[in-house]
Amino acid sequence: MEKLDLLYEGKAKRIYRTNDEGIVWVEYKDSATAFNGEKKAQITGKGRLNNEITSLLFEKLKNEGIQNHFIKKISETEQLVQKVDIIPLEVVVRNIIAGSLSKRLGIEEGISLEETIVEFYYKNDDLGDPLVTEDHIKTLKLATPEQLQILRTIGLKVNDILLTHFSSCNLRLVDFKLEFGITEDGQIILADEISPDTCRLWDKDTNEKFDKDVFRRDIGNLTEAYTEILNRLGGKQHV
Amino acid sequence: MEKLDLLYEGKAKRIYRTNDEGIVWVEYKDSATAFNGEKKAQITGKGRLNNEITSLLFEKLKNEGIQNHFIKKISETEQLVQKVDIIPLEVVVRNIIAGSLSKRLGIEEGISLEETIVEFYYKNDDLGDPLVTEDHIKTLKLATPEQLQILRTIGLKVNDILLTHFSSCNLRLVDFKLEFGITEDGQIILADEISPDTCRLWDKDTNEKFDKDVFRRDIGNLTEAYTEILNRLGGKQHV
Repeated sequence: MEKLDLLYEGKAKRIYRTNDEGIVWVEYKDSATAFNGEKKAQITGKGRLNNEITSLLFEKLKNEGIQNHFIKKISETEQLVQKVDIIPLEVVVRNIIAGSLSKRLGIEEGISLEETIVEFYYKNDDLGDPLVTEDHIKTLKLATPEQLQILRTIGLKVNDILLTHFSSCNLRLVDFKLEFGITEDGQIILADEISPDTCRLWDKDTNEKFDKDVFRRDIGNLTEAYTEILNRLGGKQHV
Repeated sequence: MEKLDLLYEGKAKRIYRTNDEGIVWVEYKDSATAFNGEKKAQITGKGRLNNEITSLLFEKLKNEGIQNHFIKKISETEQLVQKVDIIPLEVVVRNIIAGSLSKRLGIEEGISLEETIVEFYYKNDDLGDPLVTEDHIKTLKLATPEQLQILRTIGLKVNDILLTHFSSCNLRLVDFKLEFGITEDGQIILADEISPDTCRLWDKDTNEKFDKDVFRRDIGNLTEAYTEILNRLGGKQHV
């Protein structure tokens, strides 16, 4: 497999073309950003940690029957994935109130939800990734109602699998963000990454945070937090 | 009918108890507010105009089969309405992109929507009346999914009636906000007001604005704009 030209550079990853039309080469960067890019830092080891954690979780999900773009990890910071057209929606699944939901609804962070919440955000940096309803999504033609139903259903299935998986690592899965892509033959599959950048993960006993809130809120060392997640998931330790 | 003690004072109206348990006395105030109360003014005549316009529109809707709380106008600035428990949701119906929707979706104001949008906002001044999804509404226990479906259905029916009605007055109904209440026997009926405070109304030929945006955006005289609406609706002129 050859790494060819850069297709896209995001805040946390670079995507390259390969000599196989159907496969792209993903490189995880060491940059951390928050608040729509307003807060930035370079954090050595972050790219490696997110690449390893995402690889473990996408393997796990594939084994549990969730089709996704992951093919294989090819280096500490790189992986090969199936090329898809990313649907410009962030699908957020929430088990416990935290972050923007706490502010929106005026409910204290940490309260467990009676029913899991699924939210959709429009992936658009210029607009600050706004919350959108099904009517908005229809207006923007981002997805059909049937596609939205699929995103919701897969999101809830992923939640069931990850809740159990993280629970066995003594972690509380508070909430997480998924992205989906459409394959050449029109199928919707899970894409992007699942890492402490995109999940809130709290220790089950102490509620200590092991996710990007450590960076957002300056409450600890990001590399140590993400390393803790990788270790608990059983990944090889590189410290 | 006797006017008794003040039950509630909002930004635009005062609600009084009466000697009839099932009826409250509404007094429209001359105060104008915008941006969650950050911008304020006293505008002589505003209370009278909104009381008259709301009375005309609620009569019209009642005649068209939309059950609502309106009983009768009893003075220039006062009306009697059925007492209901207000559901703390603002139901916003949109035909043309404007205001917060234009900012949220990044689409220019004035573009007609292919399909009418219905949005729900949580009536909560401390939180700035945030947009909420069906999942949020379930979490907050503001309404059941069945009640939400009723709010949406009535909202769209009101839209059909008002679109035609305003169109016959050479006005474009851009969007509007409704509130609903629950009667003692558990029925959901339309409540609150429908006025240029709660609707965007543009002249069909010139797109001149005859609604609260005149005040929000300092682009004209509110009393003149609202008087124009009352006149076009066929109300008595008091200028």
